[in-house]
Amino acid sequence: MAEINHQVGIKAPPEKIYELLTTNEGLSKWWTNDISGAGEVGALIQFRFNGGGPDFLVTKLIPNKLVGWKHSGNIPELWVGTEILFELKVVETQTFVRFVHSNWKESSDFMAHCSTKWAVFLLSLKDAVEKGTGKPFPNDIHIDHS
Amino acid sequence: MAEINHQVGIKAPPEKIYELLTTNEGLSKWWTNDISGAGEVGALIQFRFNGGGPDFLVTKLIPNKLVGWKHSGNIPELWVGTEILFELKVVETQTFVRFVHSNWKESSDFMAHCSTKWAVFLLSLKDAVEKGTGKPFPNDIHIDHS
Repeated sequence: MAEINHQVGIKAPPEKIYELLTTNEGLSKWWTNDISGAGEVGALIQFRFNGGGPDFLVTKLIPNKLVGWKHSGNIPELWVGTEILFELKVVETQTFVRFVHSNWKESSDFMAHCSTKWAVFLLSLKDAVEKGTGKPFPNDIHIDHS
Repeated sequence: MAEINHQVGIKAPPEKIYELLTTNEGLSKWWTNDISGAGEVGALIQFRFNGGGPDFLVTKLIPNKLVGWKHSGNIPELWVGTEILFELKVVETQTFVRFVHSNWKESSDFMAHCSTKWAVFLLSLKDAVEKGTGKPFPNDIHIDHS
């Protein structure tokens, strides 16, 4: 199984970041502006990009420490069976966000694309918390010309 | 073994990108401004960040298609034994850069940090080619406050 790993450090208490990982309003500040369904464990979050996009089931929540999602449905096809974990760790004056998108069947070009794109969105999360403005879709940074 | 995967698409012919992966002047436009030793297979490239940094042995070169490096020396410790591959693939009007940093002993927090940082540098490579100005160290985008 292949996986994507990232880590960013954000100058903010974990409570501020946790909110941006667990509410529709918070998630829409950094990933995509069209989000519904965020909630407690068992909630199905619908992330939409021009109408289509993935659903994730909320599987783990430890307030201000951990957020776990499991992909649900069939879009995108290569995400079926994958899981996402955000771990928050406070070190001195910053909170590290340790991100893992795991359980990919193989290390494909599409996985590589998603890896770079996740970095862009995690830096969008960082900016959303630190500067008040992230770059969620459709204002996200483009990593290619497709 | 763990690995880092990325992919960016650059609106330029592969020749322009290959030059930025194989010459001191080209590499200094996007990764770090202090580079020496770039050359043919067998060359030892020294990448320096405030004096210290990794060495990479050039192991594979297929003009305008592939660049392979093997880490040499002991800095950083967790990079010992790792390898880096850049593959260039032309699709219509863009050239995709498929990046793999492989052979990590484990998926550590440091590897996750490097994964995010590689995304930043590959976007710096993209900007260097497309806009003429990248963000090599010490002008690189910071992903934490360490």
